[in-house]
Amino acid sequence: MADVLIVGAHPDDIELGFGASAALMAAQGHDVAFLDLTNGEPTPFGDPATRMREAAEAAAVLGIRQRITLDLPNRELTDTIEARHKIAAVYRSLRPRLLFIQKGPDAHPDHIDGSMAALKARFDAKLTKSKIPGEPFYPARVFGYLASHLRLHVKPAFILNVSSTFAMKLAAVKIYKSQFAASGREEMMLKRVEEMGAYYGRLIGAAYGEPVFCDEEIGLSDIRDLCF
Amino acid sequence: MADVLIVGAHPDDIELGFGASAALMAAQGHDVAFLDLTNGEPTPFGDPATRMREAAEAAAVLGIRQRITLDLPNRELTDTIEARHKIAAVYRSLRPRLLFIQKGPDAHPDHIDGSMAALKARFDAKLTKSKIPGEPFYPARVFGYLASHLRLHVKPAFILNVSSTFAMKLAAVKIYKSQFAASGREEMMLKRVEEMGAYYGRLIGAAYGEPVFCDEEIGLSDIRDLCF
Amino acid sequence: MADVLIVGAHPDDIELGFGASAALMAAQGHDVAFLDLTNGEPTPFGDPATRMREAAEAAAVLGIRQRITLDLPNRELTDTIEARHKIAAVYRSLRPRLLFIQKGPDAHPDHIDGSMAALKARFDAKLTKSKIPGEPFYPARVFGYLASHLRLHVKPAFILNVSSTFAMKLAAVKIYKSQFAASGREEMMLKRVEEMGAYYGRLIGAAYGEPVFCDEEIGLSDIRDLCF
Amino acid sequence: MADVLIVGAHPDDIELGFGASAALMAAQGHDVAFLDLTNGEPTPFGDPATRMREAAEAAAVLGIRQRITLDLPNRELTDTIEARHKIAAVYRSLRPRLLFIQKGPDAHPDHIDGSMAALKARFDAKLTKSKIPGEPFYPARVFGYLASHLRLHVKPAFILNVSSTFAMKLAAVKIYKSQFAASGREEMMLKRVEEMGAYYGRLIGAAYGEPVFCDEEIGLSDIRDLCF
Amino acid sequence: MADVLIVGAHPDDIELGFGASAALMAAQGHDVAFLDLTNGEPTPFGDPATRMREAAEAAAVLGIRQRITLDLPNRELTDTIEARHKIAAVYRSLRPRLLFIQKGPDAHPDHIDGSMAALKARFDAKLTKSKIPGEPFYPARVFGYLASHLRLHVKPAFILNVSSTFAMKLAAVKIYKSQFAASGREEMMLKRVEEMGAYYGRLIGAAYGEPVFCDEEIGLSDIRDLCF
Amino acid sequence: MADVLIVGAHPDDIELGFGASAALMAAQGHDVAFLDLTNGEPTPFGDPATRMREAAEAAAVLGIRQRITLDLPNRELTDTIEARHKIAAVYRSLRPRLLFIQKGPDAHPDHIDGSMAALKARFDAKLTKSKIPGEPFYPARVFGYLASHLRLHVKPAFILNVSSTFAMKLAAVKIYKSQFAASGREEMMLKRVEEMGAYYGRLIGAAYGEPVFCDEEIGLSDIRDLCF
Repeated sequence: MADVLIVGAHPDDIELGFGASAALMAAQGHDVAFLDLTNGEPTPFGDPATRMREAAEAAAVLGIRQRITLDLPNRELTDTIEARHKIAAVYRSLRPRLLFIQKGPDAHPDHIDGSMAALKARFDAKLTKSKIPGEPFYPARVFGYLASHLRLHVKPAFILNVSSTFAMKLAAVKIYKSQFAASGREEMMLKRVEEMGAYYGRLIGAAYGEPVFCDEEIGLSDIRDLCF
Repeated sequence: MADVLIVGAHPDDIELGFGASAALMAAQGHDVAFLDLTNGEPTPFGDPATRMREAAEAAAVLGIRQRITLDLPNRELTDTIEARHKIAAVYRSLRPRLLFIQKGPDAHPDHIDGSMAALKARFDAKLTKSKIPGEPFYPARVFGYLASHLRLHVKPAFILNVSSTFAMKLAAVKIYKSQFAASGREEMMLKRVEEMGAYYGRLIGAAYGEPVFCDEEIGLSDIRDLCF
Repeated sequence: MADVLIVGAHPDDIELGFGASAALMAAQGHDVAFLDLTNGEPTPFGDPATRMREAAEAAAVLGIRQRITLDLPNRELTDTIEARHKIAAVYRSLRPRLLFIQKGPDAHPDHIDGSMAALKARFDAKLTKSKIPGEPFYPARVFGYLASHLRLHVKPAFILNVSSTFAMKLAAVKIYKSQFAASGREEMMLKRVEEMGAYYGRLIGAAYGEPVFCDEEIGLSDIRDLCF
Repeated sequence: MADVLIVGAHPDDIELGFGASAALMAAQGHDVAFLDLTNGEPTPFGDPATRMREAAEAAAVLGIRQRITLDLPNRELTDTIEARHKIAAVYRSLRPRLLFIQKGPDAHPDHIDGSMAALKARFDAKLTKSKIPGEPFYPARVFGYLASHLRLHVKPAFILNVSSTFAMKLAAVKIYKSQFAASGREEMMLKRVEEMGAYYGRLIGAAYGEPVFCDEEIGLSDIRDLCF
Repeated sequence: MADVLIVGAHPDDIELGFGASAALMAAQGHDVAFLDLTNGEPTPFGDPATRMREAAEAAAVLGIRQRITLDLPNRELTDTIEARHKIAAVYRSLRPRLLFIQKGPDAHPDHIDGSMAALKARFDAKLTKSKIPGEPFYPARVFGYLASHLRLHVKPAFILNVSSTFAMKLAAVKIYKSQFAASGREEMMLKRVEEMGAYYGRLIGAAYGEPVFCDEEIGLSDIRDLCF
Repeated sequence: MADVLIVGAHPDDIELGFGASAALMAAQGHDVAFLDLTNGEPTPFGDPATRMREAAEAAAVLGIRQRITLDLPNRELTDTIEARHKIAAVYRSLRPRLLFIQKGPDAHPDHIDGSMAALKARFDAKLTKSKIPGEPFYPARVFGYLASHLRLHVKPAFILNVSSTFAMKLAAVKIYKSQFAASGREEMMLKRVEEMGAYYGRLIGAAYGEPVFCDEEIGLSDIRDLCF
C-alpha cells in the first residue's frame, strides 16, 4: 500500500527528476513507493546486479521503503497492452492515491513509451471483468515530474520546496556509481542537478525546488503551504 | 495588520470574484482584510451611504473584520502616482504578506487601471526615503482573482476548494440589493456565480472552486492540501 | 452519405461530449452520422445487446438516423493499420465533409488510441491504389470534441450554442441506463453534464454550449452566426 | 446607427488591417461604419484636407456609408478620460452591436493608446448618470483586427474569408496616394497586403483571409459558414 | 559524414518544407544530406524508378550530394523498434551534428510515425552494447521543419532567411513531375510554396523564409546573423 | 553612433539583466551603448554622485564606451509624451540598429512605465515634422532582456551564450557597492546572478546564458552561431 507512487523508466530517473520530492513527502509522513519499469541495463559500465543494488541503496538514502522493478525491456520499452497490464497490476497492489510519471517531451524512447504506458495503466487498473491481477483501483490523480533528456524550459503546475531534502537527492544520485562515477560524469551530473534545483528553488523564494506538471488544474484546500 | 489583503475597484468586486476564498481563508485562521479603491458610486440604483452599508454587511457575512474604502474616483479610476501612494499607505498600515488583486484583461476601465495601480503600489510601499505614510513594507507575494467583465476562459495558477464557504459567498452577493435586486438582476447574477463556482469546483473534484492567477510560479512546501 | 461524421471510442462518448451539437446540426438540416469504434463492452452493468439498443435509442433521441458500430476491441483499442483501414472504409462509405473526433489529452487508453486511429484513417481514406474498400475520399476538415476522462480546462476553437438542443442531450445520456442508472451514477453524471454545458454557454452569452477544438485555424464566410 | 463599428487610430489603419472584411460585411447586408480617432496628419507627404478626402473615397470604395473622424491628436494620442468620453459618445450615437479595434502589441504609440481608449470607451458608454452625450449603450462584443507595426505571428480567434472583396481592399489602399504613392511605397505596400491576405486565406482553404482576435471565446449558432 | 541531416517520410517532403534552407546551408559550406524513410510509392502517377530519379535530380538542384532512401513501407510507416534501428544505422554512418525532422501535428500517418521514429532513433544511435550497425553516435541537436498536411499557424523557434536560395526550392519542387505536373497540381503547389515562403520572409524583413521548430531553447553565440 | 543600444530604468538594471551580453557584443566588435532613464536615486545607501560613478565604472568593466543617463524621475518614471521625446532624442543621436529594453511583466513601476516609454520612443524617433531634436531614425528591431522584480519563468526568443564574458558581469555587479555591499546583499545577489546564468547556459549546452525576448519572430541568415 502507498499514498504516492513514482514511476520511472530506469533506476535513477526518479532520483534525478524527483528524488528530493520523494524524500520530502516520505519525511512528511506520506507513504511513498518507487516503480522502475525496467532494470535499466545494459549500460556502458553497469550490470543488472550492480544496478539493482544501487537502486535499493538510493531508495534507502531517500527514506523510501518500497521499490519495485518490472522486467520490461530496457531500450525497447514500448507502449503495449502487455506492458500496461504489468504496470496496472502494481497499481492494484500498492493502491496509491497519487501517481507521478515522467513528463514529456523527451529524447529517450523508453521515457516516451514508458510514460505513456504508465498513464494508460492507470485507467486499465480500474476496469472490472479484467484479467489484470488484483482488485480494481484508480489512482485519483496523476502528475508529471521532469527527468527528460531534452533540456525543457516549460511551465510547471507548481514547484515543491525541497530545501530540506535536497542533500539527500545528491547523495542518492551519487549512489549510482555504475552510471556516473564509472564514466567520469559524476561531478558534471551533480553540478547540473544542483543548478536545476537552485533555479527552481529561486523561482519560489526557496533554496531548492523540483517542478511538478499536470494536464489538469491544481486544487488547494488551504493556502498555508504556499511559498513566498 | 493582516495576513492577506484583497483589493477590488468597487465594493462587490471582491465578493463576486473571491468571496468564498476570503471566507475560507478567514475561517482557517488567516487574518484577511478587504480594500476597495472606490466607493463604487454612482450606479443606477445605489448611493454612497447604501453602498457602504452593504459593503460592511457583506464583509461581516464572510467573516472579514476589516474593510477599507479609499476615496479614489469611481468610473475615472486611473493609474497615477497619487492613487498608487494612497494604496501603498494602506499596505504599509496593514502589512499583509499576501496580496490578491483583480486579474485582467477586463472590459471595465476601473478594473484595468485599479489593478495596475494596486500592483505598482506594492513596490512603492517598500521604498525608503519616501513621503508615503508609514514604515516601508513589501507584501511578499501578489496573486490575481477573477472578477472581470470579460468572460475569460484562461488557465489559473491553482483553484481554491471553497465548497465549505460557497454559501457564504452567495449570501454576501445578495446583500448588495442596490446592485442586483434593485435592477432585477439578482437571480441571474446568483445563477452565474453558482455556475462558475460549480465549474471551477468540478475541475478539482470539489463542489465549488475559485481560480487564482499568478505571473510567477507557485511553490508548495507540502502536498497535503492538494485536491483530488 | 453524411455531411458530418462524429467518431467516438464507445457508445455514450459522443452523447456526453457532443450530443447537443449533433442534435443541433441535425435539426439545422445537416446530415449527421455517428461512428462508434467499439461496442463499449464489457462494463460493470452492461452487455453488448443492451448497449447496442441504448446506443440506437440515444441516436434516435438526438435525431440521428445513422449510427455505425465497429467491432474493434473495447479496452484494447490500439492505433494499428488494421483499425485505421476499418475506419477509413466507413469514411469512404459515408463520405462526410466534416469529421469530429475525441480531443486529447485523455486518461482512457481507448480514447487516446481511438482518436489517433480516427485521425490517421482520414488520410488513409484518400489513398488510391489501396486495398481499403470503397472509392478514395478525404473528409475536408477534422475537429475535436471534448469527452475526456481528464478534467480539461483548455482553449476551444469555438463553442457551439446548443441552447435549443441541450435537453435532448440530457435525454440521450439518460438512455444509457446500463452505464449510469445501474451504477447509481445517473444523477451525478447529469449534474456534471448540466454544469459543463452551462459554463460553456455562459462564455458565449448563451444558455448552453459545447466546445469544439482544432489544430488548424477557423475560417468563417460570414459573421451572422457569431454569438454575443 | 450601425451593426458593426470598426475603430482605427489613423485613416488607412482600418483599410490595411480589415478593409476586405469591412467590405464583405457591408456586402452581406450588415451596416458597417468606420471611426478614425485622429486625422492621421501630419505625415511626410500628407495634409489634413487630402487625408480626409482619401479617407472618404476609400470608405466609398469599400461600400461603407458612414465614416467619422475624431479630432484626437495624431502622434500624441493617449488613453485619457477625455479621449474615452469622445469615443464613447460615438458609440452611443451609432449603437453598434459589434466593435472591432486594433489588436496589439504594436510599435506605434497611437495604436497602443488608441486601442486601449477605444476598449475602455465601450464600458464608459454604458454608464448611467454620466456626462457623456447620448443614451447609455453597450456594444455587445469587441474583437481585434491586425494593423500593427510589429510583424505579429499570433493565433487568431478566426479568419474571415474575404476572397470576394479582397480586390476592393487593394483598391482602397491605393486611394491613399499621400501615404503610399507619394513616398514610392505603394508597390511594396500592395505586395505586402497581397501576401498577408493570401497567407491567411490559405490557412482556411480560401483565396484571401483577414484574421480576427478576441480575448473571449467565439460562439457560433450554426456550422454553415465554416470554411474548409 | 555530414554536418546536417534532414529526414523526411517521402521524397519531396524535404523539398517542400525545407528545400531552400537545405540549399542555403549547403551553399554556406555546411555538409548537408537527405534521408527519405520510404520511396514514397505508390502514388497516383508515380512509380519507384521515376520517383528515385526525381529525388536524385531534386537533391542535385539544391546542391545536396548525398541522399539516402530507406525501404520502410510507404503508407504503412510505423514507429517500431525495427524502423528506429534502420534509421539509427544511418545516423551512425553519417554522424550529423544537427538533425531536422518533420514537425507535427500532421494529417499524414507516415509523417506522424516517421517523425517519431526519427526522433527516437537519435537516442538509439548513441547506445553502446547494441546490435545497430556502426559506432555509437548522438546528433547534438534536433530541430523540426514544416511539411505538414495540416495548415499549421504556430510559433517557430526561428526563421531562416532563404531569399538567396528560394528559386532553387521552386526548381526542386518542379522536378517532381510525377507528383505535381502529372496531376495538374503543379501551378497550385508552386503558388502555395511561394506564398508560404513570402509570408515567413516578411516576418523577418526578408524576401523569403522557412520556419524552424524546437522543443528546446535556441542558443546563439553571436548576434551577427539576426535578420532585421 | 551605436549598433546596439540597451535601455534600463536605473543604473544596474542593464548589468543585472544583460551585462554579460553587452560585454559579449562589445567584445565581438559591435558598438554597444547604455541608456539609463533615471539616475536611480534615492536608494537606502546611495546618492547621485556615487551612483553615477559606479555606473561609469561598471560600463568600463564591461567594455562599453558610451553610457547616457537621462534626468527622468526615479520612482515616478511614467510613460508620458515628454519622457518618450527625451528618449527618442537619444535614439536619433546614437542611431542604433538594435534596441534592447526591459521585458515585462514586472513588479517595479519604473520598469513597467520605462519599458513602455522606451518602446514608444522608438516610433516617435522616426517621425518627420516633429519637435524632437535630431534627424528622424527608426531602430530596426527591438528585443527584451530580463531584469524584472518578478521571478519570471517564461519562454525566451533565444539565449545568448555568454560563457566568455560572464565573469565581467559579476565584476560589474560588484561595482555597485551602494546598492549591494552597503546593504549586505552582495553575496546573495551574486549567487542569484550566478544561478540564473548557469541555468540559462545549461539550456543551450553552455556554461552561462542570458535570455532575449521578442514579440516578433527571430530571423537568422546562417546556422553557424547556433549552440548545441
